[in-house]
Amino acid sequence: MKIAVDAMGGDNAPEEIIKGVVEAARKNPCEIILVGDEKKIRDVLKNEGDTSNLPISIKHATEVITMREHPADAVRTKKDSSIVVATHMVKDGKCDAVLSAGSTGAAVAAAQLILKRIHGIGRPAIATPFPTAKGVTLLLDSGANVDSRPEHLVQVGIMGAIYSEYVLGKKNPTVGLLNIGEEETKGNEQVKETYDLLKNNSAINFLGNAEGRDIPEGNFDVVVCDGFVGNVVLKFGEGLAMTIFKLIKEEIDAAGVSAKLGALLLMPTLKNLSKRLDVSEYGGAPLLGVDGYCIISHGSSDAKTICSAISRSQEYVKSHILERIKTFI
Amino acid sequence: MKIAVDAMGGDNAPEEIIKGVVEAARKNPCEIILVGDEKKIRDVLKNEGDTSNLPISIKHATEVITMREHPADAVRTKKDSSIVVATHMVKDGKCDAVLSAGSTGAAVAAAQLILKRIHGIGRPAIATPFPTAKGVTLLLDSGANVDSRPEHLVQVGIMGAIYSEYVLGKKNPTVGLLNIGEEETKGNEQVKETYDLLKNNSAINFLGNAEGRDIPEGNFDVVVCDGFVGNVVLKFGEGLAMTIFKLIKEEIDAAGVSAKLGALLLMPTLKNLSKRLDVSEYGGAPLLGVDGYCIISHGSSDAKTICSAISRSQEYVKSHILERIKTFI
Repeated sequence: MKIAVDAMGGDNAPEEIIKGVVEAARKNPCEIILVGDEKKIRDVLKNEGDTSNLPISIKHATEVITMREHPADAVRTKKDSSIVVATHMVKDGKCDAVLSAGSTGAAVAAAQLILKRIHGIGRPAIATPFPTAKGVTLLLDSGANVDSRPEHLVQVGIMGAIYSEYVLGKKNPTVGLLNIGEEETKGNEQVKETYDLLKNNSAINFLGNAEGRDIPEGNFDVVVCDGFVGNVVLKFGEGLAMTIFKLIKEEIDAAGVSAKLGALLLMPTLKNLSKRLDVSEYGGAPLLGVDGYCIISHGSSDAKTICSAISRSQEYVKSHILERIKTFI
Repeated sequence: MKIAVDAMGGDNAPEEIIKGVVEAARKNPCEIILVGDEKKIRDVLKNEGDTSNLPISIKHATEVITMREHPADAVRTKKDSSIVVATHMVKDGKCDAVLSAGSTGAAVAAAQLILKRIHGIGRPAIATPFPTAKGVTLLLDSGANVDSRPEHLVQVGIMGAIYSEYVLGKKNPTVGLLNIGEEETKGNEQVKETYDLLKNNSAINFLGNAEGRDIPEGNFDVVVCDGFVGNVVLKFGEGLAMTIFKLIKEEIDAAGVSAKLGALLLMPTLKNLSKRLDVSEYGGAPLLGVDGYCIISHGSSDAKTICSAISRSQEYVKSHILERIKTFI
């Protein structure tokens, strides 16, 4: 298996991306092509010890798409950007998957323009694994499209259920529709229509509406929503969790000796919890609905996240999800 | 000042509602009318010690609107329900404000049907104070209306800024529009149009788009969004915070003696933090945009929350927000 990694995308690129790739290559038998500025990549690789025997190669690309650029315009004009070149390698059959921690909009636009949507799919969706009290819940769409129509959201639900079953290993995964109340009559026009369509779709195990709290509580395997709502919720959740842990630290710093000793004794336990809640364990989120394997990692990804994302990408490719989605749609 | 309290609304009604009212009446010079089943109210009051000298009276109402009922239908048919009777007392000038922890939909419908909207206001909004790293951020609309139009959201922003300034004491409060990115071009049609309108409105201190993480980080005094998004975000936030603290407890329970000792030593610090983040300190959320003072408390409110909500309601009435909103719109 060959994975094209956008070496230039992300807040910590190229350093952390390349570190993560080296770590992954040392662990798993998987060929990785680093796409981006060859000189910069070689400079970073030099610091990673002996990598000459690792299955890592470089594909030079002269441009980078930044977070500030209009995604679709940038993909159209920057033909030699790392994300465009990496996505083309999948389209041309030179790689099995593309992974990027760069501009999410650019990765989605490149996938839509180059790999194209699976025939019959209205809107691709980013499927983000969210750590919960009971394991992991797949939240999608978490930002590929805003203003989705109800029929698109039904497809999003089907794709999410397939991913949850064949990659995350949930049997007959439960699907919920993110809404402001449990009752069928709740919500805006978009979700009310989606509810009716999901209820009458026998392909998935639809349990009804999910409220916001159902996500962290882990009451559904898959939660479906519009990309606007999903993206706001995810960023809010990241911010809230970070704020809570930051405030705990602040209170400890301001507290007396006994609290500081308490914090010290409790540290291994808190670390254990932080591992349970660590998004980087999942590494990346697949873009479902395009005709190729595309994985999007968080902009702030570090080496550990990229390494996990590469493992996850391998499972994703091996699952033959693309064929399964094509059969269902 | 007189406040009508829906004694029958909420998961813990009437017990906790009445307890909270007694606590508030003992603290503050404010007349309270408990609205609901007189016999039940008297039975609970008996357990609260000597209340004969407190400024608490009872207004009998035979019906209750439950969470499961269709709000507007229930308000129209159950004319002798506690929330309808309490709201009428404000309309008729017998009370200055109405407070309910019952069905939010019913409280909003009663306010809209009985108090009516302020002339010129398209949609009322629930303004929820959210505890953040830097104090409190007002999130609105957090659930009064879904499918708001851009011009409604601008009014929501203006009302939020007025409330933030005159009740929460923020000077020239900063206003953000909840969106999926900082850039002006981001988001769905609704928020893009709203952005343009807010940008050109000199009445408020609009700083641009707020992302999900900006809410817990406290980067804006007021964050404006559609009631669908606001409600999902709030419930998600409640669930996530509860899940994190529940998981910390789980990990401690499963850990060894030293971690348990650490937890014990750290307890006062964690309690301090939990107080900083405690939503019940704010008690309730005003429904802005209706022609009367209406405060909505969380369905799970306990006595402490109700007591805080009564204090907050008094500040709200004293602020003459209604007149200020009427001047601005």
